[in-house]
Amino acid sequence: MTTEFGLNAVHQYTFRFSQADVIEFARITGDNNPLHLDPDFAARTPFKRPIIHGMLGASVFTKVLGTEFPGFGSVYLGQTLEFLRPMFVDTDYEVTFTVQAVNPAKHTAEIQGEVRDVQTKKVVMRGVATLMHQEKI
Amino acid sequence: MTTEFGLNAVHQYTFRFSQADVIEFARITGDNNPLHLDPDFAARTPFKRPIIHGMLGASVFTKVLGTEFPGFGSVYLGQTLEFLRPMFVDTDYEVTFTVQAVNPAKHTAEIQGEVRDVQTKKVVMRGVATLMHQEKI
Repeated sequence: MTTEFGLNAVHQYTFRFSQADVIEFARITGDNNPLHLDPDFAARTPFKRPIIHGMLGASVFTKVLGTEFPGFGSVYLGQTLEFLRPMFVDTDYEVTFTVQAVNPAKHTAEIQGEVRDVQTKKVVMRGVATLMHQEKI
Repeated sequence: MTTEFGLNAVHQYTFRFSQADVIEFARITGDNNPLHLDPDFAARTPFKRPIIHGMLGASVFTKVLGTEFPGFGSVYLGQTLEFLRPMFVDTDYEVTFTVQAVNPAKHTAEIQGEVRDVQTKKVVMRGVATLMHQEKI
């Protein structure tokens, strides 16, 4: 479901990450926290199994806002993130973006994103992106 | 410079990303915005050359907070991010973390991070992380 970019417009996108993605993210960023990489370590935490890096999950914001909605040309100005529940590999998530505010004079918009586990419907992450797009806003 | 974790504690960390890191981040996340990958496209923007993904730059928060300060065992609850200036590859950046608030009863802390270009000293990114650490907070 997608509506044309503008106030109250909505855009949805489904995604998942693999353990290979998590390992590669750990390599690039240097975040080798065993909570993400070591099943034995994770088994001794309340999460029971490795969780993906919060910032890897949050990368769905830059992916969708930078390439689809509003798309190429977006310049990221800010982001808030609430990590409400752990996110796991090989699990389908759906993010719903809703345009909450638009400032045509400044070509900026505030876009709320809410990520849900497709199966449980529970919200795992939420945040608001602020971005500029010279042509589309 | 590092002080023991607690209110007003400070921790610094220097880092840089390569174009190979940016390409790999684009592959994992699907964010193939040409602003990050295509020098010809970037040359026609106000940035003149490719900039790194904002969320890749922001991954320094998860790296340092998850592995060094307070370190392994950190659980990320939230993050605000302000992308103040573009970040480029092959450029040294220094992040300074300062513990702004601590709640020992909940084992949570708010930690401000400020990223500066080492050469120009200009702040390129700023944000506040909220995290929980059962042993260290």
